[in-house]
Amino acid sequence: MSKVRVAVNGYGVIGKRIADAVVVQDDMELVGVADVVTDWRVKVALQKGYPVFASSPEAAQQMQAAGIPLAGTLDDLLKQVDVVADATPKKVAAANLEKYRAAGVKSIFQGGEKHNLTGHSFVAQANYATALGRDTTRVVSCNTTSIVRTLGVLKDAGLLKRARGVLVRRATDPWESDHEGIMNTVVPEQHIPSHQGPDAQTVIPELDVVTMAIKASHTTSHLHSWYVQLTRPASRDEILDVFYHTPRIAFLRMDEGIVALNSTLEMMADLGRPRGDMWEVGLWEDNLGVEGDELFYNYQVYNQAIVVPETIDAIRALTGIETDGLRSIAKTDQAMGLLREFVPVATEPVP
Amino acid sequence: MSKVRVAVNGYGVIGKRIADAVVVQDDMELVGVADVVTDWRVKVALQKGYPVFASSPEAAQQMQAAGIPLAGTLDDLLKQVDVVADATPKKVAAANLEKYRAAGVKSIFQGGEKHNLTGHSFVAQANYATALGRDTTRVVSCNTTSIVRTLGVLKDAGLLKRARGVLVRRATDPWESDHEGIMNTVVPEQHIPSHQGPDAQTVIPELDVVTMAIKASHTTSHLHSWYVQLTRPASRDEILDVFYHTPRIAFLRMDEGIVALNSTLEMMADLGRPRGDMWEVGLWEDNLGVEGDELFYNYQVYNQAIVVPETIDAIRALTGIETDGLRSIAKTDQAMGLLREFVPVATEPVP
Repeated sequence: MSKVRVAVNGYGVIGKRIADAVVVQDDMELVGVADVVTDWRVKVALQKGYPVFASSPEAAQQMQAAGIPLAGTLDDLLKQVDVVADATPKKVAAANLEKYRAAGVKSIFQGGEKHNLTGHSFVAQANYATALGRDTTRVVSCNTTSIVRTLGVLKDAGLLKRARGVLVRRATDPWESDHEGIMNTVVPEQHIPSHQGPDAQTVIPELDVVTMAIKASHTTSHLHSWYVQLTRPASRDEILDVFYHTPRIAFLRMDEGIVALNSTLEMMADLGRPRGDMWEVGLWEDNLGVEGDELFYNYQVYNQAIVVPETIDAIRALTGIETDGLRSIAKTDQAMGLLREFVPVATEPVP
Repeated sequence: MSKVRVAVNGYGVIGKRIADAVVVQDDMELVGVADVVTDWRVKVALQKGYPVFASSPEAAQQMQAAGIPLAGTLDDLLKQVDVVADATPKKVAAANLEKYRAAGVKSIFQGGEKHNLTGHSFVAQANYATALGRDTTRVVSCNTTSIVRTLGVLKDAGLLKRARGVLVRRATDPWESDHEGIMNTVVPEQHIPSHQGPDAQTVIPELDVVTMAIKASHTTSHLHSWYVQLTRPASRDEILDVFYHTPRIAFLRMDEGIVALNSTLEMMADLGRPRGDMWEVGLWEDNLGVEGDELFYNYQVYNQAIVVPETIDAIRALTGIETDGLRSIAKTDQAMGLLREFVPVATEPVP
């Protein structure tokens, strides 16, 4: 079977990670990446050997004037691929769908777009099957992905009655310096409930979930604090067992010294991950509490990377090269190096 | 009736504010403040005309050597007062209780001490009456005070079934530079639930409340996000009405530009408050949501000042100079300048 030919349109925070993740899959081929910028960002893509295309004719002129060796325009790229992962900024992406459809190319959008754009919102472990053969889907945002992964599995286990969460969001991405950040304050989101609850319901409609969001003065990813009412009293071990056996959720341990968002990221870097990415929901195991039918926990969402493996699975679902969601997840995770335990607990002393 | 004679032991973040608040009450006299330091902090007290005492004989030697004009030691101070507000650091305070008792002086401790030290924990609007005539009580911590004020009034209105909150704490106090702060990260508290829920139950035992706490990278006070299950469906107006008619809760409005912790503090400074203090729970009115029997809201706790009016009321309760809690609250708030509305909503256009 020939490889699926993939384009990435928008080579930013998410797009560059999708490109790298496509490259390590043995059933996919990265045909090229498209963007509009002329600076270091596309130059690094060229250094990696990725064919670079211009996302628009106007961008092509500017990129050529800046000496960027172009493989063509987006139109040229679309003629050579089966599917495009669109990681362009909000508002740009929505206008692209018609272009992809006209070219007969399947498309995957990111969580900044509305559910209505594609009519389908995707989290691999929850609804891979309903994306099979569709021409387009939307991988939900980082926070929504984490909510669907964690609450979805509690629901599948018959344990979820309702969940109420507080999302402490990062001020801006670490590499930004555009004054969109905040400093020495906390900013509650104007609207309660925040949009992530309804967004999770685009994937699992019957989820009883409400979220509040606040923005804090840091750049090192998001933290979620959750109150979950269970359908019945459960033991702590039972809950941990459910999470432990779920892909893309991995435990963090305070007693291992992982006590804050930044210590997690230092561990990711030490694990040798590309860009120090954490693709898993990092759930604090020794911080999780159960009292009767109530469950409390905190987890960390690495916003720059958590949706990347989902996007890889979405490519397989739309193109149908793998019809089983769990097999796609396992294949993606194996190729990218996702872990079920970041630091395995030794059962025998090291000799 | 003669004025109650008050001593403040420990002239730090809380103690200096208590001293200032005592001075503006017409039924109290600040006899002196005691501390152990020799630097600018006690020198400012001297500039204000507060008699300064040494908290210990060893401190007296050092303070005299540093040229601090002492009015005596703590023992001398205790001979001249009816009640002492103890705002010394944790562990120091507990050892002081026996000293106060031996001197026949009533005492008020702060929330860093355990409930068991005094056997009574105090929030004026909740349990003023049970403190009447006691020889000692503990004003609960800033976060617990805010919890008792807000949930207590919902309970009194017959509306509270249970409450689950997430506390986003400030890294350290603004004036500190002692490496106890954190930067560019979020630190979840190791234990869930956090101690504030049980602490609130020392004031209102039957409260069904659970809290989680995390520390964030800012110094501008605490933010609380709450999920409250009501005993019955209620309207948003009904809830706002309950909070509006409660002393020491005042509304913040995002549509007035108060969108974050720091904007609130700028408004407090503009209002001409001493040190820019906010003594009220600052509850976002236009951010509060109700869905059926569920209530969601955020509020701000200015940790350096919120317990100060409570301490003033505790002085009246222990000494019995006012037997009615609401009258004491009204008197304290009038003298200190607490507001029910920070920025009154104009009903008529300004001519």
